[in-house]
Amino acid sequence: MPRIAYLGPERTFTEQATRRLVDPATHELIPATTVAAALELVRLDKVDAAVVPVENSVEGSVPPTLDGLALGSPLVAIAETVLPVRFTVLVRPGTKAADVRTVTSHPHALAQVREWLAANLPNAAELATTSTAAAAVAVAEGTADAAITAPIAAEGSALTALAADIGDVADAVTRFLLVRKPGLVPAPTGNDRTSIVVVTENRPGSLSEVLVELALRGIDLCRIESRPTREKLGIYRFFLDFAGHIAEPRVGEALSALHRTCSDVRFLGSFARADGDSPPPPPGTGTAEFTEAAQWLTQVRAGGQA
Amino acid sequence: MPRIAYLGPERTFTEQATRRLVDPATHELIPATTVAAALELVRLDKVDAAVVPVENSVEGSVPPTLDGLALGSPLVAIAETVLPVRFTVLVRPGTKAADVRTVTSHPHALAQVREWLAANLPNAAELATTSTAAAAVAVAEGTADAAITAPIAAEGSALTALAADIGDVADAVTRFLLVRKPGLVPAPTGNDRTSIVVVTENRPGSLSEVLVELALRGIDLCRIESRPTREKLGIYRFFLDFAGHIAEPRVGEALSALHRTCSDVRFLGSFARADGDSPPPPPGTGTAEFTEAAQWLTQVRAGGQA
Repeated sequence: MPRIAYLGPERTFTEQATRRLVDPATHELIPATTVAAALELVRLDKVDAAVVPVENSVEGSVPPTLDGLALGSPLVAIAETVLPVRFTVLVRPGTKAADVRTVTSHPHALAQVREWLAANLPNAAELATTSTAAAAVAVAEGTADAAITAPIAAEGSALTALAADIGDVADAVTRFLLVRKPGLVPAPTGNDRTSIVVVTENRPGSLSEVLVELALRGIDLCRIESRPTREKLGIYRFFLDFAGHIAEPRVGEALSALHRTCSDVRFLGSFARADGDSPPPPPGTGTAEFTEAAQWLTQVRAGGQA
Repeated sequence: MPRIAYLGPERTFTEQATRRLVDPATHELIPATTVAAALELVRLDKVDAAVVPVENSVEGSVPPTLDGLALGSPLVAIAETVLPVRFTVLVRPGTKAADVRTVTSHPHALAQVREWLAANLPNAAELATTSTAAAAVAVAEGTADAAITAPIAAEGSALTALAADIGDVADAVTRFLLVRKPGLVPAPTGNDRTSIVVVTENRPGSLSEVLVELALRGIDLCRIESRPTREKLGIYRFFLDFAGHIAEPRVGEALSALHRTCSDVRFLGSFARADGDSPPPPPGTGTAEFTEAAQWLTQVRAGGQA
């Protein structure tokens, strides 16, 4: 049975994402303590793949995931999923809102339901835990009255939901990646995302040159983020996500150009996009047009002129 | 006495940064519960300025600060400071490492000293708190044996340091901004940073055009990050930090160009840079060269030709 590591503990958002990305009936799911530990299990061949969060629309990117993919032996993403960040409030059976004196969760989760707490549990004191799953355990053990958890925490628990589907930002989402060692790249679906990490020379204009290579070929950027490299002060690593698949000629030609001109380019995967539709390639950048242009060039080089 | 809000509670890294940015003898320091609350106090004229964290080299950017500056009525940064992220381990007097059964802090702080804990307190159970300052309180009250805190937490406390200057990443730093309502821009120092937020049209190449406007004028980018706008799916806001001051002609001309060509540009401040030296403007982009070029153009327009 294939083994899939994920950022644990059990019954958190990452387990929920993992159950979407792989069939739990045919895969063994193994919680890891940290993102780095989950990725290390893949690198050491102790698991076949790992699921890690990469980006949250409220909290921003997940630096341990970005750094974990940029450094160490190469890993590539083969799939992504996007989960809405909606929380459930779990209490012991029979507990009413008026009975709740303490509410507990990971500080990030408490921060994301602050408006709901102010309106619904204004007198409850906040207690921090190291995960949303640990919050449910604290309530089950009686050390707190209410836990802010992932929806999955309610499953198979003796606790009941006081409220569900809460969260201050209605459309907050977290994106998760399924990563493994490099191998076959998933086939293009027509709506794909490609992720890369680029290190450029440290001089004015070096990043604009990277983006021009993409723009010239009609490639639409979805996300960009600079992270300092730890090796050398002032040298940045850029994480870029864009629409398209490495199998497409426009993307392949752009990646080759970056490989020629940047200090370092690492391919982090091309896979089906889970968060919306990509626009079609602009005129002049589609696969048929690249093929036709290559044929034309061959002809002209051979002395022909159509 | 001028009033300065900061992300509280007291005795955390942000208070430490605030004491570097303003003289505590001549300013009243007011802790706020969240970044949003600190910024709101400035907008409502309840304080003169606020200190908030903007970027951590390990944990990444601080989204509430970025979003809080991009939205709402304009605020600008007038100064920055960079603090090393080094933690102190506080215990009750007489406690030895062998006595520590529980160690407590904000989960972010626990995550940043994990290697030290594994080597030095391998058997201590981790308890989460909502801040590093709350961890010190928990140890003082006897609900935990050791607290991972900011160095400032030791000051005036009955606790003693079991270890100081710990942290898994030796050169980790956090950058803090002093922000206030728009007014006078600090004078250029020759080593300045300018921060802006830009919203562009959503089409391939729009960001590369922004960066080309900077690159053409020899402006060196320090940091870039995209954040989704909440208003409309697929529309991104770009946070850019670059070397230079709005008073310099190269920066002024670039900002004017962005104002002409982007959907929205918000100036977040020009101030003395605290994290290293900026390179001088490349040939052709210095203030003297801009002045000379303007004189030349005036002359040619008037029919002269030098």
